[in-house]
This record gives sequence, structure tokens and C-alpha cells, in this order.
Amino acid sequence: MPIYRAPVDDVQFLINDVFHLDRYANLPGFADASADVVAAILGEAAKFCEEELTPLNRVGDAQGCTRHDDGSVSTPAGFPEAFRKLAAGGWIGISAPVEFGGQGLPMILTQAVNEFVSSANVAFAMYHALTQGAIFALISHGTPEQKALYLPKMIAGEWTGTMNLTEPHCGTDLGLIRSRAAKQADGSFRISGTKIFISAGEHDLAANIVHLVLARIEGAPEGTRGLSLFVVPKVLPNADGTLGARNAVSCGAIEHKMGIHGNATCVMNYDGATGWLVGEENRGLPAMFTMMNEARLGVGVQGLALSEVAYQNAVAYAKERLQGRALGGARAKDKSADPIIVHPDVRRTLLTIKSFNEAARALVIWTALASDLHRRSDDEKIRQAADDHMGLLTPVIKGVLTDQGFANTVMAQQIFGGHGYIVEHGMEQFVRDARITMIYEGANGIQALDLVGRKLPKDGGRALQAFLAEVQGFIKEHGADAAMKPFVEPLGRATGRLQQATMWFMSNALGRPEHAGAGAYDYMHLFGLVALGYMWCRMARAAQEKLERGADGAAERMQAKLITGRFFMERMLPKTQAQLARIEAGADSVMQLPDESF
Amino acid sequence: MPIYRAPVDDVQFLINDVFHLDRYANLPGFADASADVVAAILGEAAKFCEEELTPLNRVGDAQGCTRHDDGSVSTPAGFPEAFRKLAAGGWIGISAPVEFGGQGLPMILTQAVNEFVSSANVAFAMYHALTQGAIFALISHGTPEQKALYLPKMIAGEWTGTMNLTEPHCGTDLGLIRSRAAKQADGSFRISGTKIFISAGEHDLAANIVHLVLARIEGAPEGTRGLSLFVVPKVLPNADGTLGARNAVSCGAIEHKMGIHGNATCVMNYDGATGWLVGEENRGLPAMFTMMNEARLGVGVQGLALSEVAYQNAVAYAKERLQGRALGGARAKDKSADPIIVHPDVRRTLLTIKSFNEAARALVIWTALASDLHRRSDDEKIRQAADDHMGLLTPVIKGVLTDQGFANTVMAQQIFGGHGYIVEHGMEQFVRDARITMIYEGANGIQALDLVGRKLPKDGGRALQAFLAEVQGFIKEHGADAAMKPFVEPLGRATGRLQQATMWFMSNALGRPEHAGAGAYDYMHLFGLVALGYMWCRMARAAQEKLERGADGAAERMQAKLITGRFFMERMLPKTQAQLARIEAGADSVMQLPDESF
Repeated sequence: MPIYRAPVDDVQFLINDVFHLDRYANLPGFADASADVVAAILGEAAKFCEEELTPLNRVGDAQGCTRHDDGSVSTPAGFPEAFRKLAAGGWIGISAPVEFGGQGLPMILTQAVNEFVSSANVAFAMYHALTQGAIFALISHGTPEQKALYLPKMIAGEWTGTMNLTEPHCGTDLGLIRSRAAKQADGSFRISGTKIFISAGEHDLAANIVHLVLARIEGAPEGTRGLSLFVVPKVLPNADGTLGARNAVSCGAIEHKMGIHGNATCVMNYDGATGWLVGEENRGLPAMFTMMNEARLGVGVQGLALSEVAYQNAVAYAKERLQGRALGGARAKDKSADPIIVHPDVRRTLLTIKSFNEAARALVIWTALASDLHRRSDDEKIRQAADDHMGLLTPVIKGVLTDQGFANTVMAQQIFGGHGYIVEHGMEQFVRDARITMIYEGANGIQALDLVGRKLPKDGGRALQAFLAEVQGFIKEHGADAAMKPFVEPLGRATGRLQQATMWFMSNALGRPEHAGAGAYDYMHLFGLVALGYMWCRMARAAQEKLERGADGAAERMQAKLITGRFFMERMLPKTQAQLARIEAGADSVMQLPDESF
Repeated sequence: MPIYRAPVDDVQFLINDVFHLDRYANLPGFADASADVVAAILGEAAKFCEEELTPLNRVGDAQGCTRHDDGSVSTPAGFPEAFRKLAAGGWIGISAPVEFGGQGLPMILTQAVNEFVSSANVAFAMYHALTQGAIFALISHGTPEQKALYLPKMIAGEWTGTMNLTEPHCGTDLGLIRSRAAKQADGSFRISGTKIFISAGEHDLAANIVHLVLARIEGAPEGTRGLSLFVVPKVLPNADGTLGARNAVSCGAIEHKMGIHGNATCVMNYDGATGWLVGEENRGLPAMFTMMNEARLGVGVQGLALSEVAYQNAVAYAKERLQGRALGGARAKDKSADPIIVHPDVRRTLLTIKSFNEAARALVIWTALASDLHRRSDDEKIRQAADDHMGLLTPVIKGVLTDQGFANTVMAQQIFGGHGYIVEHGMEQFVRDARITMIYEGANGIQALDLVGRKLPKDGGRALQAFLAEVQGFIKEHGADAAMKPFVEPLGRATGRLQQATMWFMSNALGRPEHAGAGAYDYMHLFGLVALGYMWCRMARAAQEKLERGADGAAERMQAKLITGRFFMERMLPKTQAQLARIEAGADSVMQLPDESF
């Protein structure tokens, strides 16, 4: 049975020592998030995830979800009770507005807690993540009546939410959506169509399910400019929030998937279901996209979360499994062999994962802070800079944290040798579960195109310039500091390569966009390494400061940070050379091969 | 339902145009392998794999194997009949000695056909691969009586074989083996112990199963120097080959695994089972290791095979799935969108897989040829050079072809978007099935250590020197040829890095072996890229020659080779920079972290 310990200390190090949450006490809700409150919240979340959700992870995988003949769906044993506890603990609405029953706390805390939940049980986490996404969409675009009706129930976890975009013939290319909405005399709409891959589309965790559905109003233009967003509840609510009649929406099937078996992935049939417009007509896609940054950040967190829990189990196994002897002579002389953690290649593997996880967690917290600043600051400039940061970093976090998160679960599984391939050890489940994160909320190739095609050129490259200015400012500030040299120098080289790659696109891709398309994926990962490397520089500096101050019993942890960070800078950043070379290779050999020759 | 077309043309190109099988007609058995015979054999194998084995692949995954209360095991529906056809087709003994019923043909053909079988159905392929391995061990180490009794039955597929090494507490570290053998008055032994992860350990495909078992004779030394190899048949054969009494060996359980569900992975209990010594007492491990090169090469082939079949399905999907428009303007104007193969990032992904597969196939054929030369040449020098080649390249092929083969199945799955995560499309099965190849027959970390710790220093580095001399000879010979420049120049740079990495080990790892351990994995992959790059140079030259000669209707295929090869040289070889940098980073940051800080 896999173990899990939530990395509470590491989150606190980031919040308190690296990003200094206390410096933002002027923001609404931040004053409530004192170090003590944060510690209490994280501690409670950790306990809930470790004790309630972790034991249900294997159960969920083995049992999966069951669709009954009447279209109802049962989740695995224990899920309904765990969801009630999650809701009762207030974990859904940590950052939701107080007026609707939320706690109004920073998004930093939501993302930190969501990492814990996803490590413990990512299939379970999807029910709550989709609900958070739907809450966010209604906050941003719902009418006052819609907010009053839906938000309190969803924040309390009495009702859950979904997002309905994909159809059988269209995923990425939403302009092809065929679902239709017919306007009724009372202002409501009748929604008809089939949606697929709807996570948490039907289940037994809550009394109602609030579907957010993209559809085309009759007569609307073709393409994405004719899509509108609708709220379509499974059960039609009365004005007082009590439940009325069943709506004409039903689960036609659940998918048989590689992983996240505990989450019901549904085919949803809308047969003239009653729905109401959210936001403006034909502005459904932009409305969906305002919640996309948070949703994509959340999927990046899932990649990190699975990497983290897989890592913890690999470490435990590496300390316990006896096989072979250390190169420098036996270490466990009283035993038949040494634990495999003595072997350089095992340590290399573990450090590859560990050094990624800690930087990825920092990148998430840093970006969640931007999301808070964007939403809560009263300074227009700060809001804009934070929005730029979110827009630029979100595809990087989604693409890189899930690609590498998945790769890390595979590495962690490898530590177990043959035992890693056996279901009962649970390592192969992490691999199967992590695989979806590279696909949903926009496959990672789409993230790369979003970064290169949209986010780079936006506003004359303002977001990238601000990012580079911050990184270079740090390098300049600490370049003369001998203790920071092993961090700052490799970051400087990697950042130079990122600039060179950007210049190459500017010089070549304007005339031939295929050059950008052919290099986008490598650019995303190059950007990721620079961003993660920058996070290591920030963490190294914070660790050194903490050690200089005396470190309050955290000295060993801070020393470990510095070693882990050096490993990352030495061994991960050199990859940026290859990425740059591939980008500069351009599109020729990519586009030349005739389709028939593939 | 996934498709599969065996790459017969590509194998013929390698055999006829790149490696010129006709130049080896002096070797025993090679004269029988004329181009026509090879074409006929490959064509027949292709037909069998495409028509009989491919349709059973999903069935095997869905049904898995079932162990009954009496310890018997049923394989999935259709497997027994398919195995009878495989045996009747003579596919098990293509390269086995004619005197025992084999066809005596080159190992090149066995490996080529094994690729087809593994692409079609890798779980099924394991029954026949293990039998081939056991045949090989008995040919090398069995007594004349053992050979006469077992080989004809195994080559005919009436009996199958297994290899029993792993025990619950030991996989890599075989010195810890606890299974015991007690000598009997009649010269036989009573074998007792538990073996795990025994592929094809029990099944309903054949009348008897011939287990090869590592165990320790009572009183033998501890460690690997006290291990002996035994043949332990499931049913005791009479001297005339008819079946006698059931032996005291049974399947205690079958494992519930991530993939290859169609293969029974068994816990085997030996309860005083009767066995006979194979080879000398206490020389069991060296005896096992003589068959290891071929077995490891075979697992490398499985990595390639799964990469190939996943690639073919991804290409089919990319040509069919309509989504978005080409960057240069709509291509399929009559349709709602273009097929996704127009998108640079999709093409980049497909070419990454394709350019790897074709080079990997060449590396396998080249190395299988060395295995033939080693076994069949009458020239001592050629035999030695071939043995050096096999020893050096085997860990590279096993490690690199399975690591990258697995990564390629993941990339191919990604082309399908959300549909790739759904079981019915079959893409996720390729990923799950491919995952085991990185683990069994020596986990890939062990391959890296074998390469760096054993194969490099062996005989004063003779094998590596010969490899480098050949590669550099080619570079020198073709360096001035303008058409070969895009191939030879990147190979020259990559080869320089391989030499630099080797020098670094020589200068640093003798004094501190941890430096070798920390860099071994990157060295294996660096070596792999140089070897694959060299294969592309050989193929490019052969394609150019063929085009110069007129190409006999293969002009498009040869042009495609050149484009695909250029893609590989431009985009895959730059990674060698990062690998060298990591190797030269050494062991410091790898070894420094205290165990408690992981």
C-alpha cells in the first residue's frame, strides 16, 4: 500500500521564506492568512489527505465507477463519505468569496492543498477540481441570480460542477462544436447535443451536478465566434435552492480508461435540456478561457502531485530494499546487502525527481500568488503584471509539470524493479493516472502553441520581457555572491539560450510560421527549465539567508535544499543546449516528408 | 482496433542494401538465406503476425491469464491455437540447428521476425521468446542427452521454456538466491525454493514446460559463485520423449500486472522437484549469461516493436483526424478541418518516432549479424570482433531501445489526444506493455552499469576502440562527400563527445567509481545516440547509392530515408551535449545528500 506525507514544511518554506506572504497583508484576505493560520490549514489538509484520501486511492483504481441501467453512476466505496468530509472541511471554497460561504483565503493555499489532495487521490481530486473550476466561471460570468442560486451550494459541496467542451469529432478545434441551444420564450434555452470525456459528469457524491456547456445558439455564426456558455443543472433548482424536476441531461456511458478509474469520465447526452446563458451570447469561449488559466495551473499541480507521491514511495523502497553493495564498500554490514539508496544511479534517479518537485512547487506557488495579485490588488500596474505572469507561465506549468511529472512517475516506478510493474505496489497506478495530465485541459502540444503563438507576441512581448527582466535582475543582484555562483551562472547560460531561441523565432517565424510550430514544444520545455532554474536560485538564496539567521532547527533541511538545487543546476539545465539546437534546426526536415511517406 | 503492417521493405533494405547479407555466403546457413528466401520468410511471417496475432492483442489484454485452483493456467482465447500455428510455421527454430529440427538460418532473420511478432502481440511473443532463450541455453551448455531429449520438442513448439532467476528478495543481486538443490544417488537433484516473475511459467499452450532454474547445491559457496543451473521439466519425460509423471513444481499464483496481461507471470514453487544439472556445478551464472546477450537483444527488439506498432497507429490517426487548419492555409478545403498531420508539432512527434525506429532496426540487424559471425565464422579474429561488438552493443540496445521505445509509445498515444487514454483505441495498451521492457532482463540502470563497469574496461577497452575505429573510418571515408555532410558532421561531433566522456571516466572514475555510477545512465544513452547516428549514416549512404543506381521503384522510399535521417541528425544528436555535461558533473551532488534528506 503506497504511503503519502504531505510536504507541509516545504510549502511553508516557500510561503514564508521564499515568497514572503507577509509582505502582501494589504491584499484582501491575506491578513487572515498569517503564518499560524497557514500552518493550521496545511496541517489539517495534510491529515485529511493522508488519513482519508490516501487509503482510497488503490480502492478507487480497483473498483472504478459503475454506470447503472438508469444512467446513474456509483463511485468507488468510500468516495461519497470522503467527499462529504472534504466539503465539511471547507476545502472546496478555501479561496472562494466569503459572501457565498467561501473562506476568501489566497489561491496559494488552494493550490497547495490541491497538490496534497491530488497526491493522495487524483481521481477523487477531479470531482473537487471541476467544482472549483465551475465556481470560478460562475463568479466571473454568472448573473447575480445565478451566483446566489448556485455558488453557496457548490462551495458547500452539496452540488458539484463540470465543464462540457469536447464532442466526439472535436477536442482542440472547438470551432467544430455541433451542440445547439434553442432560445425559449422565458429566456431559457433548450440544449441538445453529445459531449464526451466529461470528468465527474455523473456520480453519487452530491445531490446535483451543475454542467457548464458550450453550445451554439441557433443562427449563431460558425466557428468559435458562435459559441455560448450555458449552465445546465442535472436537477432543475427552484428559486429557493431546493431541488425540482430532473433535467433532460443524462450520462450515456462511462469511458474505460488507462487510469483515474475512480473518476467517472462520461458521455453526456443533452436532449433538449433546460439551460441558462452564462455571460454574453457568442462569447462562450472567452468566458471559458477566463477560467482556463486556473484550471491549467491545477492540472500542472496534478503532474507535480503524482511525481511527489511516486517519489516518496520510491525513496521508502530504496531505503528498505537490500540489493548489492555500495561502491565504496559495504554500508549495512550486518545485512545480506546494502539498501539500494547507496547506489549512485538510484540516487541520481531520486534526485532528478526531488529537484524537479521542489522547483515545480515553487513555480506553482509563485504563479498562484500572481493569480491572487491579479484578482485582489488595487494597483492597476500590479494587476496587469500579474495577469501577464499568469498568461505566460500557465502553459509552461501545464506542459512541463505534467510531461516531467509523468516521466518522474515512470522513474519512481523503475526504482522498484519488477515489483514496480505489479499492481499491488501501486506504482504503476501513479504512472497510469499521471498520463492523463499531459492530455486534458489542452494537450501539451497545444500548450506549446499557446505559449509561442499567443503568449509570446501578446502586447508586443511585454510578458516575456518582464519575466526576463526579473530573472536577469536576480542574476545581476547575486552574480558577485560566491555562494550563489553555482546557481546563478547556469541560470545565466540557460536564460541566454531562451533569449536566443526567442530571437530566432522573431527573425524566422514571422515569415514562416511553421518554424514556430516545429520549435514550440522545445521552446516550452526550454522556458520551463529557465523558470525552474530561477525558482532554484530563489530557494537557494532563501535557504542561505535562513542558515545565516540560524535556521531554527531547519539547518539540515536548508542544507538539503542547497545540495538538491545544485544537482538541478548541474544536471537539468544543460538540456537547454539541445533544445536551442532543435529550435534553430527549424521546420525544413519536419515539413519536407510527404504525408504518404510517414 | 489497432492496425499493424510488418515493415518487410525496411528489413529487406537493411539486409540487402545496408548490410549486404550476400557478402557472407561463406558462413554456414547463410547461403540458404538468399534474397528470395529472405523475402519469402519475411512475407510469410508478416502475414501470420498481421492476420493471426494482431487481432489477439486486445483480447489478450482484456482477458489476461487465469490460474485455476489446481494450479493450471489458461491463456486468453485464441492463444493456444495461435501458438500451434506459430510452431507449425517453424518460427521458433528459424536459427536453431538443423539436426534438432531447426532451420539453421541467420539470427538476423530470427530478430527480424521477432520484431514482427512483438509488434503484433508482445504478450504472446514472450512464450516463444522464452522458449528460444531456453533452447539457446541448452545448445550451449546441455549434455548430448539433454539436447537430444529437449531440443527437438522445444524447437517444434511441443514444449516451451522458461528462465527462473528472480526470488522475492533478489532480482539484480542474484548472489542472494536461496533456492537449494540436493544431489540424489542417481545424479539428479531435488530442487526447492520459490521463484517469482517467471514469464510463461505455466500455461495451456504446450504439453510440457522446461524450466531452467538457478539454485545452490547444498554446501556450495555463498554468493553468485555457488549457483548452478538446472533443467526442471514440469512433466518428467521418459527417455523416448514421451511424458511421464508430473514433477513437484507448480504455479502458486500469477501476478496482476500493469501490462502484458496475455503472458502468465508466475510465482513458481519448487517442492523437491527433480532436476538435472546443466553445465558445471557452481557455474550456473556464467551459463545463464551466455544466453543473456541474445535475450537482452530480444528485449531491445520488443521496445522497437512496440514503438513501431504505436507509430503506425498514430500515423493512421493523424491522417484521419480532422482538427484545425494548416499554418500555410487550408489543405483539405472540402472538409471542416485539415487532418492533423499537417501540423508541424504532430509531424515532429511522428518523425521523432519514425527516425528512431528505422535506426534502431538497423542497430538490431547489425548486432544480430555480429551474433551470427561470432557463432558461425571460422576466422578466429572475426569471431572475437563479433563477440566484442555483441558484448558492447547489447546493453546499449537493451537500455536505449526500451527507454526510447516506451517514450515513443507515449508520444504516439499523445497524437490521439483524449482518445489515446481510452482503452478501446489500444494505444494505452502499447504504453503499458512497453513499460516492462525497461525492467526485465536486467533493469536499464543495470544495463548502464554493465556497459560502463564491465564492457568498457574489458580487454583494455578493445571493443570500444574497434567501435570507434569503425565509426571514425566511415566519417573519414565520407567526410568529403557533400551529400553525406548533413549526416557525417553531426555524427563526428557526437562521437567526439562520446570519446570525451570515456576519457573523463578514465581520468576520474578509477580513483572514485561513484563518478562512473553517477554518469553511467547518460553514457549509455550518449552511446546509443552515436550508434543510432552511425546507423543513419550507413542507411543514408545506402539510400544514396540506391538512388544513384536507379532505385527500382524505391526512389520515394529512399528519398524518405534521407529526409528522416536528416531529421534524426539535426534533432536527436544535439542531446549528446547535455549528456556529456551531466557525465562531467560527476558524483558530488549525487552522493552528498544524506539518506535522511531524501
